[in-house]
Amino acid sequence: MNPDKASRRTFLMASLGLSAVSFIRPASRQTLTVGQVIDRIKTNVAIPWREQTVDNLIAGTQDMPVKGIASTMMATLDVLQRAAAKGLNMVITHEPTFYSHQDRIEPIGQDSLYQLKRDFIQEHGLAVFHFHDHWHGRHPDGIATGMIRELGWVKNNDSQNPRLFTFPETSLARFAQGMATKLGIRTMRVIGDPNLPIKRVMASWGNVSLMPGIPYLAQADVLVVGETHEWELVEYVQDAITSGQKKALIIMGHLVSEQAGMKYCAEWLKGFISEVPVDFLAAPEPYWRPDQPVR
Amino acid sequence: MNPDKASRRTFLMASLGLSAVSFIRPASRQTLTVGQVIDRIKTNVAIPWREQTVDNLIAGTQDMPVKGIASTMMATLDVLQRAAAKGLNMVITHEPTFYSHQDRIEPIGQDSLYQLKRDFIQEHGLAVFHFHDHWHGRHPDGIATGMIRELGWVKNNDSQNPRLFTFPETSLARFAQGMATKLGIRTMRVIGDPNLPIKRVMASWGNVSLMPGIPYLAQADVLVVGETHEWELVEYVQDAITSGQKKALIIMGHLVSEQAGMKYCAEWLKGFISEVPVDFLAAPEPYWRPDQPVR
Repeated sequence: MNPDKASRRTFLMASLGLSAVSFIRPASRQTLTVGQVIDRIKTNVAIPWREQTVDNLIAGTQDMPVKGIASTMMATLDVLQRAAAKGLNMVITHEPTFYSHQDRIEPIGQDSLYQLKRDFIQEHGLAVFHFHDHWHGRHPDGIATGMIRELGWVKNNDSQNPRLFTFPETSLARFAQGMATKLGIRTMRVIGDPNLPIKRVMASWGNVSLMPGIPYLAQADVLVVGETHEWELVEYVQDAITSGQKKALIIMGHLVSEQAGMKYCAEWLKGFISEVPVDFLAAPEPYWRPDQPVR
Repeated sequence: MNPDKASRRTFLMASLGLSAVSFIRPASRQTLTVGQVIDRIKTNVAIPWREQTVDNLIAGTQDMPVKGIASTMMATLDVLQRAAAKGLNMVITHEPTFYSHQDRIEPIGQDSLYQLKRDFIQEHGLAVFHFHDHWHGRHPDGIATGMIRELGWVKNNDSQNPRLFTFPETSLARFAQGMATKLGIRTMRVIGDPNLPIKRVMASWGNVSLMPGIPYLAQADVLVVGETHEWELVEYVQDAITSGQKKALIIMGHLVSEQAGMKYCAEWLKGFISEVPVDFLAAPEPYWRPDQPVR
């Protein structure tokens, strides 16, 4: 360890308004470790780290040297392959790696595809950090910040309620078309009268359950979500419309409803990680529709 | 009660190979009660009735006289209104009435839409019976039977495995297009190479979790489901494809993936209910897509 160098860097970061907590581990001049990156994330996310959280190191070890960082919405095998090819050996993923929000391995421990993915990660010296709860928990929510910027909704955002947006009046069909075009979504699904006037929009990115879906819907003309159960919130919205309420629901798809939040995460990481490259790796929308197949 | 009439009816049903168990409650010549209909369902479904089940009387009472029966995929407010207008005062629904698979009311007890729907049911003297577990548990699965008939897949069904089908080879895109056209599905979503040759198809109607989704996928070229989580089975299928497996996933939509099973249920009910009319009430696909709005 070079104490002069460490002191200079600590001073430099402190002068940028960043905590020095992230530098308590000894580090050589050239080496940034996975543990250090996680420590800096914990410091910079600036909320207390939860005891119960899915935000854990899913693969790799704290002391692995980081050569580059990939931020992604979902650490699919495709994303991991692209990260490895680019020499980005630490992957920071919002969604699970092994098909389970809680990263439970037991149900798939004997599955050959799970083993192939696990072995790929190991053989390519990758570390995978699940970064979900605290990126949402940050003030403001990191996913929301990225999505709002990508959609160009910053100026429409309510100053008191980060989920609420006000727009010049348009129809539901036009509003949905605008979102689908902006984000290039192929399989967005909409419920409601296409001519319904839309001014107030509530957005809840990712998966949304019946609660808090119901109170969200109550606050706006249309609720925008990533994914939701058909036998819960979808039925509720249908009933609200049948009962005469002027309401609608837009289901974007889970990945496309949060992806720009991890694009923004790469930018955010660059604010306190300068030793190695940090890239955003987009995961494609998984689906196509039968009349417009996509290779 | 007219004992002659009851005896004749009991004899007639017995001669059709149906149990007389359903007639143990006293009934007048004109009156069929909700409880009697449920008893006949229990008898005719011909599997032991589960202790833990969602198949319960959700609204109404056992002794209510039944004037007509509506079988439906989902007891939306729209379906209930149509049932009431037709004088079908007992609704048999595969999916929940109050936005919860377990029919839990607590979370929504104070919600005005819940109260409106509950009051509509009461004011119109409707009974609602949730018929999910045992209709699936029947041999063969009642939902599967109806879907396979509707799709015209009876001849393609494997004799040993009711979920497995074999077709003359076609491409994934053509296969998906065929299903969407046959059932009039607007928002089907497909994952996989559109040119993937399809011969073996596994179908699991309704919601499908990672398990048993993984072993289902292993047995066929394409797995067909109604609804599934994007961060679980969808990610798994994407990884399977990336790893070189020749696989695909078709997500039909939950309602359209089971609806014909409740159309068949109406037919089945008519086999042992002749006193009152029995109708199937279709619920529409909830969604449209932004470039093809539907009023």
